[in-house]
Amino acid sequence: MKFCTHCGGSLRHAIPEGDDRLRHICDACGIVHYLNPKVIAGCIPVWEDRVLLCRRAIEPRLGYWTLPAGFMELGETLAEAARREAREEANVEVELGPLYTLFSLPHISQVYAFFRARMLEERFSAGAESLEARLFGEAEIPWDELSFDTVRRSLRLFFTDLRNGGGFVFRMEDIGPDAWKRRGEEIG
Amino acid sequence: MKFCTHCGGSLRHAIPEGDDRLRHICDACGIVHYLNPKVIAGCIPVWEDRVLLCRRAIEPRLGYWTLPAGFMELGETLAEAARREAREEANVEVELGPLYTLFSLPHISQVYAFFRARMLEERFSAGAESLEARLFGEAEIPWDELSFDTVRRSLRLFFTDLRNGGGFVFRMEDIGPDAWKRRGEEIG
Repeated sequence: MKFCTHCGGSLRHAIPEGDDRLRHICDACGIVHYLNPKVIAGCIPVWEDRVLLCRRAIEPRLGYWTLPAGFMELGETLAEAARREAREEANVEVELGPLYTLFSLPHISQVYAFFRARMLEERFSAGAESLEARLFGEAEIPWDELSFDTVRRSLRLFFTDLRNGGGFVFRMEDIGPDAWKRRGEEIG
Repeated sequence: MKFCTHCGGSLRHAIPEGDDRLRHICDACGIVHYLNPKVIAGCIPVWEDRVLLCRRAIEPRLGYWTLPAGFMELGETLAEAARREAREEANVEVELGPLYTLFSLPHISQVYAFFRARMLEERFSAGAESLEARLFGEAEIPWDELSFDTVRRSLRLFFTDLRNGGGFVFRMEDIGPDAWKRRGEEIG
């Protein structure tokens, strides 16, 4: 951030009066520009005992498998964002269940929210940002080719809860930069 | 948004190729500037059967009572943001419990998250952004002088759960612009 979005003036990196953090302040018009974490919303689309994954056609993690998810847009609810992403990435219509996982990723300033979801019919295809879309049973999940820790962790929890009789419990967790290595393969 | 933060060029309001929404695009360097919802994190600080509220010293809703909460900062987890806000607004140290409420407010592009919290000691005072801080039992809550629907709704749910034996359940809800009127006073 170098220039003011409001007046085009140069931005200075300084702590505003009454604040305690460095912000981008405009020398010309005085406006303070705040940067805040972004929210990613997605879902776990389920058909019978299988889960729908998409192979990413875009960076980051091009070629890796992911749950349909993406940046929440202005004017949306979390649920609307999750449903839209399922539609965009996998051309699938889902009925959302309860929120299932909520992650803070402070090292990249993101908050991830995944809902459980029921596919309305066994009908889907790769959206513009996906190379392919496919249903996976637990034994088929490409654990080493998943896109993000949030996806890996949500799938681990989901199949564990499913095996334990389907008593799905909402989880809120924090994920650091080396979460996968620290957790160990067994808990995802 | 009129100018590019990267090069200072003029921004155009248009739909980028492969997108389906109006974005701010820089005519000079081509960068697309995305705007996304913001996250507000807070908590319900509890001492015995009373809840700590702060009277706002800043707009919006100056003079109204609120739960300590504020915009999540870069590099924070939801829990860290909630604890920091309790410290900043009420000079109170809390031990956070589970996440209690999560609201989408699409009309103002915000996501609100409130944790339950236990005050570590009966010690608090008004922070820089508060006129005063005070503990309230359910009968004393100034329902008509609360700052935001998210605060009112969280407190309603909290005291209802408390009266029903303390079986606190996580809730995710959407709140529209006229939520209070639509819901009616009895459910907050």
